[in-house]
Amino acid sequence: MLLVKALEDKILSEGSVLPGNVLKVNGFLNHRLDVPFIMEMGKEIARLFEGCGVNKILTIETSGIPIAFAAAQEMSLPVIFAKKHKSKNLSDDVYSVEIESFTHGNTYTAVVDKAFLNEGDNILIVDDFLAIGNAVKGLIKMIESAKATTAGVAVAIEKGFQNGGDALRQKGIRVEALALVDSMDDSSVTFRK
Amino acid sequence: MLLVKALEDKILSEGSVLPGNVLKVNGFLNHRLDVPFIMEMGKEIARLFEGCGVNKILTIETSGIPIAFAAAQEMSLPVIFAKKHKSKNLSDDVYSVEIESFTHGNTYTAVVDKAFLNEGDNILIVDDFLAIGNAVKGLIKMIESAKATTAGVAVAIEKGFQNGGDALRQKGIRVEALALVDSMDDSSVTFRK
Repeated sequence: MLLVKALEDKILSEGSVLPGNVLKVNGFLNHRLDVPFIMEMGKEIARLFEGCGVNKILTIETSGIPIAFAAAQEMSLPVIFAKKHKSKNLSDDVYSVEIESFTHGNTYTAVVDKAFLNEGDNILIVDDFLAIGNAVKGLIKMIESAKATTAGVAVAIEKGFQNGGDALRQKGIRVEALALVDSMDDSSVTFRK
Repeated sequence: MLLVKALEDKILSEGSVLPGNVLKVNGFLNHRLDVPFIMEMGKEIARLFEGCGVNKILTIETSGIPIAFAAAQEMSLPVIFAKKHKSKNLSDDVYSVEIESFTHGNTYTAVVDKAFLNEGDNILIVDDFLAIGNAVKGLIKMIESAKATTAGVAVAIEKGFQNGGDALRQKGIRVEALALVDSMDDSSVTFRK
């Protein structure tokens, strides 16, 4: 809970709200990385999912990688990061999904090498942000394709008013957000209690 | 030195050489992340640059981030990662450079917010691979634009036969590679002694 308070304070003091529902936290989470702080977030994720039998962490490039890495270090697990596919040819050796990006206003293909997701895996999805939830939904599809299970979803910041997290919770998926933003505008950010 | 040997062994046992001088180490370094091992590489980088007055680590998305994060954690430093720019409009608030990618056969623009590189910074560049060295040269240009200094370059794997590392060394820049590949083909990888 100390970590949650520290993250909320950091969002309020260092973050800024940009047009188009963008919460900019470039200064510590996704351009400049506050490494000791991200490690603390990783520890909190590890605490939340302790004893859940997670054997692998899955994230997506780019900005999910640091927090996934931090959680994985604490949990002594490997990280797989889905790659944004650049070329037109898809190999048969990958799981792939189309993901619509809210932030960038485009659609891209994410891929994971089939060797890295296996039947019976129990996978924790970790990312920096959860908003509409398209990236997470795409990752869950890949996990299902591999006949693995999703242990849950952990994110640094959920934008609750975009409903992606609650839609996942209604499907029975455990979603943990270290900070859950209920509303925001250019003068204030309000967290869910 | 134990780490160097462990990395060489890992490259030999888990890596593979693909056409076009590609050394594929997807299984531990840049798709699946062997987190404890990457932490060990980070510790070795920290040891090599101990006492050099580094105050910041600079890398470039995507696959430089895990090893930069690991080194930064050991050195208690922040990481800045240069972003591959997606839109056509560049803000005045960023340092930008054009980088020709050997792996992907294209040219892209990398950007760093000017707020995150400052005059007087002494910056360690960390990346997963060093081959021709175009990415590192681009990062050094950004550091120079900010009137900061480059403390050195640390990479997991240098492909020595592509000469990027030696060209930097000849300019007086300290370059440390944890594993330095002198030659490779589809049946063998030889390391520099």
